[in-house]
Amino acid sequence: MSNDRNLQVLLKARPSGAPKESDFACVESPMPRIGAGQFLMRNLYLSLDAGFRQWMNEGAGDGYLQAMALNEPVMGLVLGTVIESRHPDYSIGELIMGRTRWESYSVADGTDYMAKMAAVDPEIPLSYYLGILGPTGLTAYFGMRDVGQPRAGETVLVSTAAGAVGSVAAQIAKIHGCRAVGLTSTDEKCRWLVEELGLDAAINYRQPGGLEAGLARHCPDGVDVYFDNVGGRTLDTVLAHLRIGARVVMCGALAAYNEAEPIPGPYNMFKIVTQRATLKGFMVTDYVAEYPAAIQQLTTWLKEGRLMNAEEMVEGVENTGAAFCRMFAGGNRGKLVVKVATAEG
Amino acid sequence: MSNDRNLQVLLKARPSGAPKESDFACVESPMPRIGAGQFLMRNLYLSLDAGFRQWMNEGAGDGYLQAMALNEPVMGLVLGTVIESRHPDYSIGELIMGRTRWESYSVADGTDYMAKMAAVDPEIPLSYYLGILGPTGLTAYFGMRDVGQPRAGETVLVSTAAGAVGSVAAQIAKIHGCRAVGLTSTDEKCRWLVEELGLDAAINYRQPGGLEAGLARHCPDGVDVYFDNVGGRTLDTVLAHLRIGARVVMCGALAAYNEAEPIPGPYNMFKIVTQRATLKGFMVTDYVAEYPAAIQQLTTWLKEGRLMNAEEMVEGVENTGAAFCRMFAGGNRGKLVVKVATAEG
Repeated sequence: MSNDRNLQVLLKARPSGAPKESDFACVESPMPRIGAGQFLMRNLYLSLDAGFRQWMNEGAGDGYLQAMALNEPVMGLVLGTVIESRHPDYSIGELIMGRTRWESYSVADGTDYMAKMAAVDPEIPLSYYLGILGPTGLTAYFGMRDVGQPRAGETVLVSTAAGAVGSVAAQIAKIHGCRAVGLTSTDEKCRWLVEELGLDAAINYRQPGGLEAGLARHCPDGVDVYFDNVGGRTLDTVLAHLRIGARVVMCGALAAYNEAEPIPGPYNMFKIVTQRATLKGFMVTDYVAEYPAAIQQLTTWLKEGRLMNAEEMVEGVENTGAAFCRMFAGGNRGKLVVKVATAEG
Repeated sequence: MSNDRNLQVLLKARPSGAPKESDFACVESPMPRIGAGQFLMRNLYLSLDAGFRQWMNEGAGDGYLQAMALNEPVMGLVLGTVIESRHPDYSIGELIMGRTRWESYSVADGTDYMAKMAAVDPEIPLSYYLGILGPTGLTAYFGMRDVGQPRAGETVLVSTAAGAVGSVAAQIAKIHGCRAVGLTSTDEKCRWLVEELGLDAAINYRQPGGLEAGLARHCPDGVDVYFDNVGGRTLDTVLAHLRIGARVVMCGALAAYNEAEPIPGPYNMFKIVTQRATLKGFMVTDYVAEYPAAIQQLTTWLKEGRLMNAEEMVEGVENTGAAFCRMFAGGNRGKLVVKVATAEG
C-alpha cells in the first residue's frame, strides 16, 4: 500500500458559469500519513453532487460550509473503508461515508460529516448508498413525502427529473399513486423517463414552445406538487400553472449555482397568494433521525421492483472533473458515481 | 327617498402607477330602480381596500373577478340596509355587506358576494364590520393564526403595519406573546405603532439605511414570522433575515398593484431552502365557515382592550377617490372607511 499513489482532483480555477474540464486537474500526490486523532480511508466511490458547485465560488459560505480553496482537492462526498486509524472511534475495516475530497485516499479526523455505514444490505450494491439510498435518494424521499405530501391522483411535476434527486422523487410520486411528469433537457432523456422509469409524461423544456407548451400539453389542469431542483425561470413558469393548494418543494436552486450575479426570483409570486400555494424549503440533514427508516423503505421498494436505481458509474478518479462537468450539461441519467480505481487494490 | 340623489364615483381613467384623484369622478345619478329578483341597498359605509386596485388595470381578471369598466362606478365592498326588495331572500331592513360599487345606493341581485349581517353586536360600531371585524381583520386573523402560527417569544415582522390588515396582524402577534415589529413609511406612523398600538418596535423603511438597517437593529436575531402584504423588494430583503423554520404569510403583493410591468420576485429564493422556510399564500375567503368564531374572538379581544381598532373615517361618497389615493401614499392609519352622507337620510 505504501507503493500506492494518491490521485487527487484539484480545483484549478473557480468555474465561471457552468464548470469546464480545465477548472480541474488530476495530480498524483504522495500517500498521506495520519497523525494522532486521525484515520485513513481508502475511497471506494466518489459521489458527484451538483450542490457542491456553489462552494467553488469565491467567498462562498454562509455558515454551512466554506468556499473550497484553489489548488486544493475538491470537496466531495465519498464512501470508503478505514485502512489505518489513530482515532479511538474509527477502526480498520469500518465502512464510512463522509465529506472529504475527490481523491483515492482521504485523511479524516471525524470532525467533518462522517457516518458509519453500519447496516449495509448485502443484496444491495455499495454505490447505491451514495445515491438512491444516500443523500440524493433521501432528499427525494423526505422532500416528496414530508414537504410535497403527494396524494393519489394528483399531478406531480419534477424538475431535473433525469437527475439523481429528480429520478427518485418522480418514482416516489408514482408509488403514491400520482401522475408524475418530469422536466428534462433532451428527447432521449424524455423517452428514458417514460419508458424506463415509468413516468406518465416528460417535457423537454428545450423544445420549441419550451416549458410553457409542455405544461399546457401534459399538465392541462395544473400542477399539485412541484418538486423544484432548479429555481429561476423554471420555477417562475411553473408558479403560473399551480393548482389551488399546490405545494412547491424547494430543494435546490441549480439555476443559481452557475450564475455570477444573483438571479431574480419569480415574477409570478402573486400566484402563491391566489393559488394558496405553499413553497417550503428543506434540508435533508434535518431528518437524520429518520434516515434508517427511510433507507429501509427505499430498500424495500427497490427489492419489490417499485423503484429503479438510476445510476451512471464512471471509472477512475482522473475522470471525476469531466463527469462533474457533464452533469451540468445535462449529460447524465440518474446518479453519477465515480468508482475509485484503487478500490480493488 | 325618490327625491334623493345617487352619488357615484366613476373610474375615469385606469391608474398608471399609484392611483391619483383625477382617475375618479363623482357624479350625481338618478335613483336606481329595481327589477324582478333585485333589491335596493342604502349604503351606510364604503370600505377602501388596496386589493381592489388590481381590478382597475386593463385586462385584469383571472377567473376571480373581472377588470372594472371605465366610466362605470368603481367596484367596492359596502355595508348597507335593504330599503326595497323584489328578491325573495332579501327583506327590507336587513343589514348587508356586499361587493357592489362606490355609490350611495346599490342595486343587487345576490349573485355577487353578499352576506347578511345577522349577528351584529350592539356594543360595536357598525363600521368595524368592514374593518377589524370584516375582511381586513379576518385576513389578519387567519393569516397570522393559521399560516404564521406565531409562538410566544418569536419575532414577528409585519409589513404595512399601519394599514388595515397589518395593524390587526401585529396586535394579534402581541396577543400570542410574540415580539411584534412593524414596517411603515413615516416616523410619525412608527411612533403611533409603538405608542398607541403597543408594538415592540417599528421600522421606517424610508429612513437612511432603510429596511436593512432597521432589521439589523430591531430583528438582530432574525425573523420567525413575516406577514407579507407587499411582496417585491421588501420580501426579498426580509428573506435574507429569516430564521431557521421561518414562516412567511403571503397575504398580498401591494408592490405589484401599481406596476405596469411584472416585477421580479426575490433574489434570495435560495434562503427559503437553507432556512427551511415556508412561504404560504392564503385567501381569507377559504375560511368562510370559520368567520363567525373568528369575529367572536376578535370582538372579545376588542372588549377586553387587548385589541385596538385602528380606523379612519372619511365623510361623503364624493371624498372616496381622494381617500383611496391617500391610502396608496401611505397616508392612513388603520382601516379607511367612507361614511356615506345619506346614511342618516
